Amino acid sequence: MPSTATVTDLYELTMAQAYLEAGKTGRAVFSLFVRELPKNRNFLVACGLEPLIEALQSFRFREEELRYLKSLGVFKSWFLDYLESYQFRSDLYAIGEGRIVFQNEPLVQVEGTLPEVQIIETVTINAIQYSTLIASKSARCYLASRGKALIDFGLRRAHGFDAGVLGARASYIAGFVGTSNLMAGMKYGVPVFGTMAHSFVMIFEEEEEAFRAFAKSFPDRVLLLIDTYDTIQGAKKAINLMKEGVKVVGVRIDSGDVESLSKQVRELFDREGYGEVKIVVSGGVDEMDIDLWLSKGAPIDIFGVGTRLLTSADAPYLDIAYKLVEYEGKPKMKLSPGKKTFPYKRQVVRHYENHTMLYDEVIPYREGGLVELYCKDGRLIRELPPLKDIRETFMEELSKLPPELKSLEKSVEYKVVVT
Amino acid sequence: MPSTATVTDLYELTMAQAYLEAGKTGRAVFSLFVRELPKNRNFLVACGLEPLIEALQSFRFREEELRYLKSLGVFKSWFLDYLESYQFRSDLYAIGEGRIVFQNEPLVQVEGTLPEVQIIETVTINAIQYSTLIASKSARCYLASRGKALIDFGLRRAHGFDAGVLGARASYIAGFVGTSNLMAGMKYGVPVFGTMAHSFVMIFEEEEEAFRAFAKSFPDRVLLLIDTYDTIQGAKKAINLMKEGVKVVGVRIDSGDVESLSKQVRELFDREGYGEVKIVVSGGVDEMDIDLWLSKGAPIDIFGVGTRLLTSADAPYLDIAYKLVEYEGKPKMKLSPGKKTFPYKRQVVRHYENHTMLYDEVIPYREGGLVELYCKDGRLIRELPPLKDIRETFMEELSKLPPELKSLEKSVEYKVVVT
Repeated sequence: MPSTATVTDLYELTMAQAYLEAGKTGRAVFSLFVRELPKNRNFLVACGLEPLIEALQSFRFREEELRYLKSLGVFKSWFLDYLESYQFRSDLYAIGEGRIVFQNEPLVQVEGTLPEVQIIETVTINAIQYSTLIASKSARCYLASRGKALIDFGLRRAHGFDAGVLGARASYIAGFVGTSNLMAGMKYGVPVFGTMAHSFVMIFEEEEEAFRAFAKSFPDRVLLLIDTYDTIQGAKKAINLMKEGVKVVGVRIDSGDVESLSKQVRELFDREGYGEVKIVVSGGVDEMDIDLWLSKGAPIDIFGVGTRLLTSADAPYLDIAYKLVEYEGKPKMKLSPGKKTFPYKRQVVRHYENHTMLYDEVIPYREGGLVELYCKDGRLIRELPPLKDIRETFMEELSKLPPELKSLEKSVEYKVVVT
Repeated sequence: MPSTATVTDLYELTMAQAYLEAGKTGRAVFSLFVRELPKNRNFLVACGLEPLIEALQSFRFREEELRYLKSLGVFKSWFLDYLESYQFRSDLYAIGEGRIVFQNEPLVQVEGTLPEVQIIETVTINAIQYSTLIASKSARCYLASRGKALIDFGLRRAHGFDAGVLGARASYIAGFVGTSNLMAGMKYGVPVFGTMAHSFVMIFEEEEEAFRAFAKSFPDRVLLLIDTYDTIQGAKKAINLMKEGVKVVGVRIDSGDVESLSKQVRELFDREGYGEVKIVVSGGVDEMDIDLWLSKGAPIDIFGVGTRLLTSADAPYLDIAYKLVEYEGKPKMKLSPGKKTFPYKRQVVRHYENHTMLYDEVIPYREGGLVELYCKDGRLIRELPPLKDIRETFMEELSKLPPELKSLEKSVEYKVVVT
């Protein structure tokens, strides 16, 4: 595994050297939280803890990293020695993946000697923010989908390879049934799906010839892309194949007036007695499209959601921060305008009424609540749940979410009392 | 280097198997281009070629990947053998990094046997789209900056680790002077910058004590964050240090009314004869802020631009596609609504008037133009320029850009004639 130690802002290391030099090596607590939810988000889905723990466990300054840092001419040699022996040895408290969370709630809290917990700031924010961003966006798609299936198609336009893989994982947690992304399948066990692109259809002289060639190679997975030339004609060709005995499982529409086309295509198949053929829609889809189409009765069975999902296009970042809240048992808080923090390590206690979330209290830490200890002195002390269990957690959480927060529009803010 | 072969959509592989089975193994050309520029973009900066070539060179299906693919139960065993021996052996044509490009221009064209060039679709789009997106966003910041310095602070909220590193590289190419990101420094030689965060100031009983501790550890790099409690008071404490002989190189303001605060702070320093102290501003900055502040005379010397840069927040993706344009010497084009393609491998010829870009022609390929051959039969045949040279290319390009396209608002579209 490549080291994540230099996926770090320079200032984490300059601060660490100055802390050590000033004798500031007491026990500190940093808290990672979202200050304010983005517009169009009524809740967030905590995600990214497993990738974070993986990154912290490979966070080591090795020869190559130390040589580079030395070459900067900024650091003292005793500090480079410190970095050489650095490894993650702190306590890590977190809210489990798949849980629904809100503003000012500590997704991750890290407690250890000050330089140690400072150094991992950048990696920690990076790992949690993207996964939480995408799980939260995915949850909106899931709410819009009314039980229809969702598949992540976003890898190609995700911001880098990591983003594609982490995004596929996050979307699966928050209700998607799978992804087109093989790396996410291989690394995290996310179910993978996919059949053909327009180029495949274009290679053959006739569209029908392309369909036949695909069916020959994958007789059990015949999902045909029918919009390369003309969607209705494409559907008719799929019907021709079925009449010859080919088992077409579905057709995909990637362009045009999806509402009207899906209705026409559904009618064509039903008229011929092929009610079991699924209609898949893709091409710039987001939760607002899904909601609109389904509200108008478009008979779509599966949505391929790509670019706008894995870039969280309507809200491409969270107002997330990793802040010092406690040092040597004393409270620490920041007073900069718009950037206030709350002191002390914290617990989140959730109150329910009739199995529905009522409000949350963010109180000074004690056991019992959403926040649990995951690492003690750097060692993982709790088994991380398999992805399917995290997905189950998300589903349970969603069933307890107040109905007004399930709206795709911004609703009234959920009450979080910080005491 | 980890293999990039499974950072791929499943359908690339299902198509490849069906192509092979149908005997469709002739020579094909795929073209990567942006259909339409995003709102607020008058031009793009080509970027990502070096990371793409790196990814293609490590694109191999090894034991782990093959075992996973076999476990899917989708592929025939002769096809898994094909994948085992797969390596990038195609010709790659591209427009060099740092060049200014427009809609419908082929940033990358790949020519090889059909299954070979199909399989790399996802990796190719992913590698080019993000770097081009961020270089283009960075260029807007550079245009707004009127010669003031720009530093990338975006790693923490970039979409994954890759995005932080590639984004730092792209922003340096398009006019930034450096980054906070150590990995980008180590891997690509981007200059790195950084000093302290609010947590550093908060750890000490007194703000001034924090400043002294930092100055003691880094006497040559004393850049003080002055807004933790009160920006003006923070500036006065910096002045106290200077009077004692500490060489303060700059102060950073990360919150509040930046225009007013920077003017007050500048005046305080100037009044004491410390005209050389730089003012750095950060905290949710984008090109519109930079333009506004500088237009109002805010005396800011350096901007730290982070989240909105590395997420390209106002336009978080490009309408980018990788399309089949030629097969066995014959033209191929797609007719789906809104998704038309132009057939044939292409060259871009740029016309100038008085050293200013006038219009581009996208013509069937011949040598001489923006498009150059980089890989022949998979082998790199042209030395990739060092990052500094790419940055120089960008600067030259910018000097030839029509003035109206330098506006931060959407101007009239640059003329691209596809013949």
